[in-house]
Amino acid sequence: MITLYDFELSGNCYKPRLLMSILGLTYETVPVDFYPGREHKSEAFLKLNPFGELPVLVDDGLVLRDSQAILIYLASKYDKTGQWYPLSDPAVLAEIAIWHDFANRITATASAARLGLSMFYDVDIEAAQAGAHQLFRLLDEHLWFGEREGRDWLCAPSHPTTADIACFPYVALSEEAGVPRQDYPAIRRWLDRVKRIPGFTVMSGVFPAGPAIEA
Amino acid sequence: MITLYDFELSGNCYKPRLLMSILGLTYETVPVDFYPGREHKSEAFLKLNPFGELPVLVDDGLVLRDSQAILIYLASKYDKTGQWYPLSDPAVLAEIAIWHDFANRITATASAARLGLSMFYDVDIEAAQAGAHQLFRLLDEHLWFGEREGRDWLCAPSHPTTADIACFPYVALSEEAGVPRQDYPAIRRWLDRVKRIPGFTVMSGVFPAGPAIEA
Repeated sequence: MITLYDFELSGNCYKPRLLMSILGLTYETVPVDFYPGREHKSEAFLKLNPFGELPVLVDDGLVLRDSQAILIYLASKYDKTGQWYPLSDPAVLAEIAIWHDFANRITATASAARLGLSMFYDVDIEAAQAGAHQLFRLLDEHLWFGEREGRDWLCAPSHPTTADIACFPYVALSEEAGVPRQDYPAIRRWLDRVKRIPGFTVMSGVFPAGPAIEA
Repeated sequence: MITLYDFELSGNCYKPRLLMSILGLTYETVPVDFYPGREHKSEAFLKLNPFGELPVLVDDGLVLRDSQAILIYLASKYDKTGQWYPLSDPAVLAEIAIWHDFANRITATASAARLGLSMFYDVDIEAAQAGAHQLFRLLDEHLWFGEREGRDWLCAPSHPTTADIACFPYVALSEEAGVPRQDYPAIRRWLDRVKRIPGFTVMSGVFPAGPAIEA
């Protein structure tokens, strides 16, 4: 049985929920009161994850922290298509590592600004927003060049990988961070593609895809 | 042919040099004047890596940034033992992702303090040192519990992985960051084990292993 220690409003917790939904896995959640309760810093939780961070996934006794690590685990263990973490392709594995790291940079900027605005964290909101815009510009260029080369996803040309799941939540939630996306058309098209992946699921603040636009 | 865009004093550049030495790979280096020249922010270098960061590895036309991503690529492509990035073991792959992320946290603290002290970067040195000590305590506990369970390495019980390579440099260089290691005996033993891996190579500031102590 898979158990996810979860906070509904966390983009990092949404990552494994999203991939498990797409892969059709069943799991149970244990809600952790991240805000306002700070339960992730409680003695009981620190025994599970000494870093005091969400999410934590437990599968048959194996305890894993770090949202991207959990994605790698779920994909390499349960994805029968082999597309989400393509173990036989070293170049794509390296690209995925690059964009998993990028996802952490988005967390350090866009998510930090959202924590400051919506959960009253002590954050330099303007600096975090400026950092998010710098990253969004790099992301938009990467996606825009990709579209010109026939690559619709972050790492592999013809299918999404765990990197698309890792980068999606805090980009999709950026309005809650005061980081609008009107200057990033390739990002907006990519968000829409992610929302059309079979099995996609929403979270609070992330809306389903609208009707497809006729060409 | 493998080409590494390299700065000798960078712990992040040392990571691929170290793994390539262990794997017995031949490569050429292109020196990049990170300090004082800031060549990694030059227009020419930004074309290679829009993030303006070292190292960059080019293998047969494939351009990769991010030291941990480069380790994953080298191991999954060139390591015939399969131990350095064990593709058939989802749990170990997840552990490696966790400790690759930990390596980035060490960079953000221990390496930042070293940049402040040795290359006059504008860094809050005391805050960076305090952050490094927090991480070193978690690392020491992880290694100490591992030794009691018969696990000598960060992720796999009986052999090192790319995670050991990723975490090694800035821990081994911590004296240059003003972060002494006398309170971390398990870290000191682990550093010594890494230095005894066949093919280990040094960098400026990292000394070879001493003579083994008779039991």
